[in-house]
Amino acid sequence: MDATTLHTSLGDASMESMNLLNEIAGRYPEAISFAAGRPFEGFYEVDQVHEYLRVFCDHLRTERGMTDAQVARTLYQYGDTKGIITDLIARSLAVDEGIEAAPASVVVTVGCQEAMFLVLRALRADDRDVLLAPSPTYVGLTGAALLADLPVRTVCTGGTGIDLDDLLVQLRAARAEGKRVRACYVTPDFANPVGVSMEMPDRRRLLDIAESEDILLLEDNAYGLFHSGPDRPATLKALDRRQRVVYLGSFAKTGVPGARVGYAVADQRVIRGAGDGTGGGLFADELSKIKSMLTVNTSPIGQAVIGGKLLSNGCSMIAANQREAAVYRDNLNQVLHGLAKRLGDRPEISWNAPTGGFFVVVTVPFTADDEFLEHAADRYGVLFTPMHHFYGSTAGFRQLRLSISTLTPDRIEEGLDRLAELILQRLR
Amino acid sequence: MDATTLHTSLGDASMESMNLLNEIAGRYPEAISFAAGRPFEGFYEVDQVHEYLRVFCDHLRTERGMTDAQVARTLYQYGDTKGIITDLIARSLAVDEGIEAAPASVVVTVGCQEAMFLVLRALRADDRDVLLAPSPTYVGLTGAALLADLPVRTVCTGGTGIDLDDLLVQLRAARAEGKRVRACYVTPDFANPVGVSMEMPDRRRLLDIAESEDILLLEDNAYGLFHSGPDRPATLKALDRRQRVVYLGSFAKTGVPGARVGYAVADQRVIRGAGDGTGGGLFADELSKIKSMLTVNTSPIGQAVIGGKLLSNGCSMIAANQREAAVYRDNLNQVLHGLAKRLGDRPEISWNAPTGGFFVVVTVPFTADDEFLEHAADRYGVLFTPMHHFYGSTAGFRQLRLSISTLTPDRIEEGLDRLAELILQRLR
Repeated sequence: MDATTLHTSLGDASMESMNLLNEIAGRYPEAISFAAGRPFEGFYEVDQVHEYLRVFCDHLRTERGMTDAQVARTLYQYGDTKGIITDLIARSLAVDEGIEAAPASVVVTVGCQEAMFLVLRALRADDRDVLLAPSPTYVGLTGAALLADLPVRTVCTGGTGIDLDDLLVQLRAARAEGKRVRACYVTPDFANPVGVSMEMPDRRRLLDIAESEDILLLEDNAYGLFHSGPDRPATLKALDRRQRVVYLGSFAKTGVPGARVGYAVADQRVIRGAGDGTGGGLFADELSKIKSMLTVNTSPIGQAVIGGKLLSNGCSMIAANQREAAVYRDNLNQVLHGLAKRLGDRPEISWNAPTGGFFVVVTVPFTADDEFLEHAADRYGVLFTPMHHFYGSTAGFRQLRLSISTLTPDRIEEGLDRLAELILQRLR
Repeated sequence: MDATTLHTSLGDASMESMNLLNEIAGRYPEAISFAAGRPFEGFYEVDQVHEYLRVFCDHLRTERGMTDAQVARTLYQYGDTKGIITDLIARSLAVDEGIEAAPASVVVTVGCQEAMFLVLRALRADDRDVLLAPSPTYVGLTGAALLADLPVRTVCTGGTGIDLDDLLVQLRAARAEGKRVRACYVTPDFANPVGVSMEMPDRRRLLDIAESEDILLLEDNAYGLFHSGPDRPATLKALDRRQRVVYLGSFAKTGVPGARVGYAVADQRVIRGAGDGTGGGLFADELSKIKSMLTVNTSPIGQAVIGGKLLSNGCSMIAANQREAAVYRDNLNQVLHGLAKRLGDRPEISWNAPTGGFFVVVTVPFTADDEFLEHAADRYGVLFTPMHHFYGSTAGFRQLRLSISTLTPDRIEEGLDRLAELILQRLR
């Protein structure tokens, strides 16, 4: 089989980024890893999975009045394509985010990644269609767009996220080329990889731009609940009064990654027929149609695990994650202080200062590519993610992403020692 | 949002077929349903899900030498994109099917549906590419092809499955139009919807055609284990010596549908670079790359449930499904005998006689479309699937698919009484 006869996505370096990085990490299992973006594992217990399942099954019996046979059938059988916990997700969005979402506008997906693909597949009608996304951006977005044959046009990122002036410039440039801009992907809170968050005036302005320019906003909110400060800004979806926002939710960081449960909230009305405004349903129904031919439905067992976790915590993932949030907050502070202590007197080295989330970006005055990573792993026993992977290897060659989520305080101290030594050595 | 600006698949009636049928069924909950293709539910027990999880976790401890923390991490975290039970699947293929598959050639997917999409996405490089598939065919194949923008060209079906002479005719016709035929989708055993199976000489001839014409065969084997007779014919993959077959496996009928676990076996070698035959990996690795951007990985919890069921039964799904297989065998016999008893003296009505699987097709001398189904449900309290849905509504208007999988003997008798009355009434 000749690789050149396969789908074009398979020839794109972005599709390989994560494999390549995992492969390097895999060769240095003893290295201290600031690369892994996985959630903290210290509180995982197998018994809890069983407990979540039991709690959800009890809920089916007591709240939904099911018999034992119906409960068994709910776990075992195929189920509704949109999912069996749309009501619980809607309630958690109200409790945690102040988002009012009708359960019918929710589609439960196999992680947030499937939600992304569903939305991009739906929005790609022909080859005029394009998507806007900040650069750097999450590789999962780049990959899903490649699979959907939807070109991504990049928008600059400033110190607080996507640059809205450049967004307008790119919008107009795309249109001048005859392109149809369907949506802009954005992660307002602690974006992967840059870690920064949008300020409130920018959030409102972005919503206004979406309305006046008639585009959708695809809001990815995987990290929003891990906020260190007192004032958590409202999500775009909470501020959205004009159905401009498709909200992409994840339980991979707050729930159980291994359940593979995410969701989209898509309350946009879809008009079918002669534009008389009747008929048609919600955008969520279109996503559900695509999902029925992609994965049929999300595992009811996985959904039951997440449902049980929600029910055990009053449908609040903030409540469910208090211990984890404290770990991330402490780790983030430790990394920021640790960098300052070790490298604060070197003006040629800088880093940003996110107020939450998993990521910090360090800028250095030399090339920090995959070869440098290999050197770091081999000689210094420390791992990070070269930022160029998030720029489609067009930029970011002097930046490192540090992830703070999986390490213990000891390992962070030791890891920062190694990282500082590595960087200072390279400066000599 | 204007529906005409969405992906073309969303305007195709095939994408709506199942929703439409479910909607009709939903309005007649008391009707006896020969429509549902779901597996038999009589043996489902929630405790068994817990037990399967425990068995798999014990296996991780004892066979893979994991600590409790590692076991917890395996269930909770993201895992290998190809899956964590590829070894157990490979073993079950050897035990049940005589298929020798290296675990590295297996990709665990979110049901067989995701496996189909991964393969079709990979094989669609540009708009010359087409897929062959028998008509009538499973709607999930049609839907996945629509999502991958891969046109399907149909091949006639005879009394024992795909018509191989017509396959050659269609292959040449496609090539004469400048098309590149990538693969032929086929279900040799108890195909959905027609229920029939290919004979051994045809299986061998199909493999020879694939080799001489340089196409892949996509073998869907969701029902093969439910064979009534003594001699189960070998699958194409078991006969495949030239890596012509991509095997699409499902645990939805034999495992736990709600785990949403299927897989592809893709042992084809992919050549990258200047055709020197070096480099590159397996087609399974390409599928895994696509999967990493579609669903990241299949829920380890779902995989653990299936893994536990396999381990509890010596990695044999034949052993695991003895009770279910007996139910399907008895139900199929009851339906075939019941049709003969009630309609055997009416030569204008006929049906086929599958030797296993879930489906029987009845041919009538009048239109049996969705309106007729509605009439059947409303007046006679009986449901079936109008066959035209499997022909993209281009044919099959005088055929009904009866599914035998979910009913008890009482309900079958009563359902056949109703069905016979309905048919005889229409003949008067």
